[in-house]
Amino acid sequence: MRPERYQPVDARIWPRFSGIRTFARLPYVAQPQPEVEVAVIGFPFDTATSYRTGARFGPEAIRSASALLRPYHLEYDVDVFAGIACVDAGDVPVAPGDTATTYRQAQEALAQLIQHGALPLVLGGDHSITLAELRVLAQIHGPLALIHLDAHGDTWDEYFGQKYFHGTTFRRATEEHLIDPAHSIQAGLRGPLYSRCDIEDARDMGFTVLSAKALRELGPERFGDLVKERVGRQKAFLSFDVDFCDPAFAPGTGTPEIGGFSS
Amino acid sequence: MRPERYQPVDARIWPRFSGIRTFARLPYVAQPQPEVEVAVIGFPFDTATSYRTGARFGPEAIRSASALLRPYHLEYDVDVFAGIACVDAGDVPVAPGDTATTYRQAQEALAQLIQHGALPLVLGGDHSITLAELRVLAQIHGPLALIHLDAHGDTWDEYFGQKYFHGTTFRRATEEHLIDPAHSIQAGLRGPLYSRCDIEDARDMGFTVLSAKALRELGPERFGDLVKERVGRQKAFLSFDVDFCDPAFAPGTGTPEIGGFSS
Amino acid sequence: MRPERYQPVDARIWPRFSGIRTFARLPYVAQPQPEVEVAVIGFPFDTATSYRTGARFGPEAIRSASALLRPYHLEYDVDVFAGIACVDAGDVPVAPGDTATTYRQAQEALAQLIQHGALPLVLGGDHSITLAELRVLAQIHGPLALIHLDAHGDTWDEYFGQKYFHGTTFRRATEEHLIDPAHSIQAGLRGPLYSRCDIEDARDMGFTVLSAKALRELGPERFGDLVKERVGRQKAFLSFDVDFCDPAFAPGTGTPEIGGFSS
Amino acid sequence: MRPERYQPVDARIWPRFSGIRTFARLPYVAQPQPEVEVAVIGFPFDTATSYRTGARFGPEAIRSASALLRPYHLEYDVDVFAGIACVDAGDVPVAPGDTATTYRQAQEALAQLIQHGALPLVLGGDHSITLAELRVLAQIHGPLALIHLDAHGDTWDEYFGQKYFHGTTFRRATEEHLIDPAHSIQAGLRGPLYSRCDIEDARDMGFTVLSAKALRELGPERFGDLVKERVGRQKAFLSFDVDFCDPAFAPGTGTPEIGGFSS
Amino acid sequence: MRPERYQPVDARIWPRFSGIRTFARLPYVAQPQPEVEVAVIGFPFDTATSYRTGARFGPEAIRSASALLRPYHLEYDVDVFAGIACVDAGDVPVAPGDTATTYRQAQEALAQLIQHGALPLVLGGDHSITLAELRVLAQIHGPLALIHLDAHGDTWDEYFGQKYFHGTTFRRATEEHLIDPAHSIQAGLRGPLYSRCDIEDARDMGFTVLSAKALRELGPERFGDLVKERVGRQKAFLSFDVDFCDPAFAPGTGTPEIGGFSS
Amino acid sequence: MRPERYQPVDARIWPRFSGIRTFARLPYVAQPQPEVEVAVIGFPFDTATSYRTGARFGPEAIRSASALLRPYHLEYDVDVFAGIACVDAGDVPVAPGDTATTYRQAQEALAQLIQHGALPLVLGGDHSITLAELRVLAQIHGPLALIHLDAHGDTWDEYFGQKYFHGTTFRRATEEHLIDPAHSIQAGLRGPLYSRCDIEDARDMGFTVLSAKALRELGPERFGDLVKERVGRQKAFLSFDVDFCDPAFAPGTGTPEIGGFSS
Repeated sequence: MRPERYQPVDARIWPRFSGIRTFARLPYVAQPQPEVEVAVIGFPFDTATSYRTGARFGPEAIRSASALLRPYHLEYDVDVFAGIACVDAGDVPVAPGDTATTYRQAQEALAQLIQHGALPLVLGGDHSITLAELRVLAQIHGPLALIHLDAHGDTWDEYFGQKYFHGTTFRRATEEHLIDPAHSIQAGLRGPLYSRCDIEDARDMGFTVLSAKALRELGPERFGDLVKERVGRQKAFLSFDVDFCDPAFAPGTGTPEIGGFSS
Repeated sequence: MRPERYQPVDARIWPRFSGIRTFARLPYVAQPQPEVEVAVIGFPFDTATSYRTGARFGPEAIRSASALLRPYHLEYDVDVFAGIACVDAGDVPVAPGDTATTYRQAQEALAQLIQHGALPLVLGGDHSITLAELRVLAQIHGPLALIHLDAHGDTWDEYFGQKYFHGTTFRRATEEHLIDPAHSIQAGLRGPLYSRCDIEDARDMGFTVLSAKALRELGPERFGDLVKERVGRQKAFLSFDVDFCDPAFAPGTGTPEIGGFSS
Repeated sequence: MRPERYQPVDARIWPRFSGIRTFARLPYVAQPQPEVEVAVIGFPFDTATSYRTGARFGPEAIRSASALLRPYHLEYDVDVFAGIACVDAGDVPVAPGDTATTYRQAQEALAQLIQHGALPLVLGGDHSITLAELRVLAQIHGPLALIHLDAHGDTWDEYFGQKYFHGTTFRRATEEHLIDPAHSIQAGLRGPLYSRCDIEDARDMGFTVLSAKALRELGPERFGDLVKERVGRQKAFLSFDVDFCDPAFAPGTGTPEIGGFSS
Repeated sequence: MRPERYQPVDARIWPRFSGIRTFARLPYVAQPQPEVEVAVIGFPFDTATSYRTGARFGPEAIRSASALLRPYHLEYDVDVFAGIACVDAGDVPVAPGDTATTYRQAQEALAQLIQHGALPLVLGGDHSITLAELRVLAQIHGPLALIHLDAHGDTWDEYFGQKYFHGTTFRRATEEHLIDPAHSIQAGLRGPLYSRCDIEDARDMGFTVLSAKALRELGPERFGDLVKERVGRQKAFLSFDVDFCDPAFAPGTGTPEIGGFSS
Repeated sequence: MRPERYQPVDARIWPRFSGIRTFARLPYVAQPQPEVEVAVIGFPFDTATSYRTGARFGPEAIRSASALLRPYHLEYDVDVFAGIACVDAGDVPVAPGDTATTYRQAQEALAQLIQHGALPLVLGGDHSITLAELRVLAQIHGPLALIHLDAHGDTWDEYFGQKYFHGTTFRRATEEHLIDPAHSIQAGLRGPLYSRCDIEDARDMGFTVLSAKALRELGPERFGDLVKERVGRQKAFLSFDVDFCDPAFAPGTGTPEIGGFSS
Repeated sequence: MRPERYQPVDARIWPRFSGIRTFARLPYVAQPQPEVEVAVIGFPFDTATSYRTGARFGPEAIRSASALLRPYHLEYDVDVFAGIACVDAGDVPVAPGDTATTYRQAQEALAQLIQHGALPLVLGGDHSITLAELRVLAQIHGPLALIHLDAHGDTWDEYFGQKYFHGTTFRRATEEHLIDPAHSIQAGLRGPLYSRCDIEDARDMGFTVLSAKALRELGPERFGDLVKERVGRQKAFLSFDVDFCDPAFAPGTGTPEIGGFSS
């Protein structure tokens, strides 16, 4: 049975430019009920950013752009929302300028969603926010397999003396045993670095790391196989950084790197 | 007693860049309950536009910009929302490309709001939409006194053979006895016209018409007095076209005219 | 003999940023004479658009960008305008907000061009305008073979209750026997749909339909062969929607879809 | 008798977004006939610019924006085009990168227009182009009275060793006896200078010079009187630099100065 | 004697679009020598911002725009840099995401400048940075008289639990005895507030507070008198927030408020 | 020994958005000392441009964007600046509007750099500037092998009567014996031309010319081999025009051509 209440608005009746902007035009349900299976939630935060700020407006921009999404995918022959009760649950509470407080508040909000039975699908926000997500999920599932598509590995130790920053997320997550590098993979890395260590550190931590060049040579199908092999029977977490795409295709990013993937 | 449920989100707790975009960060209530007094509602329509289209994205843009609004006005010493139950009720249903169908659908939606006791505060959309509002309100209150701030009088008879267009609204409204020109006033008119008739027609229809130059000379206080005098004891309807402002201050308009009012 | 009067201005003498903007800097001839073989004509209309309006400014934008075009193509070794008398004939008359009246007016204008011996090359405008073109051409040539490059098939039955809209053009054209699906091909379709029917309907109507993925796998040469095979000895009509290109390359489109073709 | 052939297109029939872009939608007549009284002509040149280039696209931008102009002015009760035969004659020929050649070519083109009886109304282009206009007109009328509205006086002696530049125009024009400073006035000057000489030089040359502050204090009516008094019985030439307006109102200028006049 | 080494580049020799971008084209001297009197220094920080971030790019934008500045002011008959040795000293070191560390680093850098005899002229950055400046200056001079031009008073107690934020600066400065409210004045306040307290608190702290409306009524001359009267014989500190200007004139600001001052 | 003084600022200490903008955040050294090996220098000139001007702001834009560069290249395993003393030496002196004077001034400045032992790495500016570079270098080294990546061959004889223009550079350089076509290669040519001669002329002059299509078919490795073979033992000069890239990836160019190379 299809949960009609928790489906996108039908664009054949309500034009896609109309109505309050929610993700994919899903119903806005601030306090998800138990029957909700997936809750899209924004995480508007950009305090932990090393170059261009502005990602606090990311959830608004994603919601606005998502008005064009329709449910059926031609090539994969799948109706994305079919049989799944999905809502947009608004944004997690944040404290701009204060990463620690933001983590605490967001973790609470995400934990509450999960306790109500909903899987959170989080819209960022700078990449520091992923640590809050992983903390909540790992408490339930143990260390997760990470599939990480990004121009940067985000495994630095610190930035300007700060341990919690958009470029340190996956080192912290490893240290806190939130992810299991042995079942994890990073792909899409490119752009100039400070030194060779930038990428070797991640490998030393146990990640499989594919540069953009290596990923291109592998191709999507063999990459899919490699992901399955790495993840195995672990619960997996997908982290997608918009800078995985080339800035010609997705210019709204904080540290753009040329040579990315196209749409 | 203050109806806390129907007030804007407190920006001291929830930063203004966070959350679903509703007008002034009011709660989104698609089906207003009887206790709601004011329902902001979008009317995303731009089919009846003679120059730049795009006003169908007007409600989205107004909602996004309104995130910065706070309730207390310094000079008038008033808390705008105090003691009033306000919501954002989303958008009326529209049929892009079809003005008549859009009128019918929007009139139904607005009538329903009013029957539930809410005063609709409508966000456009091109100026053709006002006819739908006036039809619904005049059915209840009889002909209304119109206070109309606009760079254009919108009292033409037709455009390209069409009777229902953004520049014919107040002639149609007069013909349909929705407004009472003898109690109405238009102010802010400016810009080049086709001929002197453009403005004389409105006066012949019974409106008091103030050009931008005349309004400037009168000043805000005496204009306020004049409005009160014109309206008298009639129920009044305020129609504000964004092109009343100069395009340097409000560039998002369909037929910009220089020499407008500043913020 | 080369008809010098009806050739682009020579950019070696008149810099490309100078002069009135016409398509490819062709002479502006509002009433083409019999010696004119090709008449570029704008169709500035966007009333029948489901998402972003603005295509009424399409002809102006195309003319402005076309100032950079030069006549000789390096790879194909061809001088595009050599030996052909070409002009820019301005725009067809339109009635914004009224699709039916616009069709009638545009059909008259296009018929007149053709009667004078000129082949119209039409610049849109939203995709609803193609129906007017096909009606005029099919009256002379009978049902045409359609070569259709587009992200969308535009074979829906209706939008918001309207039969004449940018997404219904080729169903209407089939019903009106303006095109012959058995000799037609659509290519480039992609993006999310409402359901599998969206694309199957077109196939049921008799079109050969290639998704963007299928077209990429086929490659340009084999696609050329397929087109020739489909068209056969029919008179053919080429309809190119700018959203065939990826929005990174051609952002000025009404319903952008990622994953398109590059320049 | 009104020369209907040489009037703007009627926007009540042809929407203002349609048709080839000419100034105020006047007919495009490359070779004006004797009955033409006013010929608008573009002068797309920006080689002689000290800061931002780009004014070579000025005529295109002015033509595009002028689509919104309508003939009747509300406050002055005048139909601007009534009884006057006006056309858009395209652009003068220019040689980008070469000021001297450009002057020679433009002077020829302007002289030809005038010989055919048309008054040229020139759209720039950087302010160096005015010298070409003045040379042609002074040859017929002798030294002209100059009314010059500008943020800058443009009476420098040279720029980077160059005598013909956008900031030297009115010194050259004085030296060449094209204008008569004793009957001329400059108004609107403002912004930081290199030294007090910048403005005193112009006064020493005989101009009446009003700073923006002085002009504001004088007001439009008394400025009008002053202009009439200065000009007297001389033939007058009006030179309007877009930077007379504040950059908030007219940002498309090469050396923006804050504190300008509003629309 | 004019210190030629520490003056802006002469734009009559070096065009204003050329060279490394420094403030007003002053020489870049990272480590000012004793003969330097004024050191312009950037403070690129936006972590303590409640709405739009991006002010970390403020110093770059100010430097780029300042290329157009010239030394002589027409109305006040003053050569701004004459006889003063000025340099651009680059930016203070910052720790994005960490306000406390940033304060400490910036205070050290500013103290060093002052010890070398240079007066720092600081380019922000969000308004939280002013606290660092005041701490350094008050240590030398004692509590300062504050002249504060801003759309907002910035005298809140906290934001989202944070004491050091762009809206709390002048309360903290008062508490730390860095400024003396009895000799201070705030002017330009406008826009909606949360409540009447927002402005009354500042008055209770001892500031003279002029709303934008009050300042307009007073006029610049009488405001100048009032400032002199308030400051008296105290050392004064001028803090200018770009949102004092209307966003039509200065759109690059974090919390734009309509109704501001023009250029 | 690594020349620490002449290395980019370390972005792990100084965030990349901070500090005066120099190329790759190198130290700004206006008068390079003998130990400097590479001096990046801007050439802000756009007088010799046939379409869009604006390249005089090119050096500023490149410096701003280069803040994101980091020294280590992942795929080639190279630290670009390691062991090399590099500085940003500002801009060469230019005379906007006067190509000949600009050449003379720039040649002097470049010669001086070279005499001090620094290799100039020049940032443009339109492509006419390369002639000045080649004149200085050929005086020392004799005719150079040219490796030229560009959408256009720039081997025309003249533009609008001018011999020194952005499209004539490499014909002039050949005539002046600054480059040796027999050891030179041009690659990336595409876009419409005036005639077949445009490309044949370059071949007749002795260049190897690869169209964009030919370069794509060859691939980067075989192109590298071909370059080495062409250059042989000659001293080589690399000229890279930003329009080699597709305008979707690098829109800031004067004569954009579709079909270019991606990042």
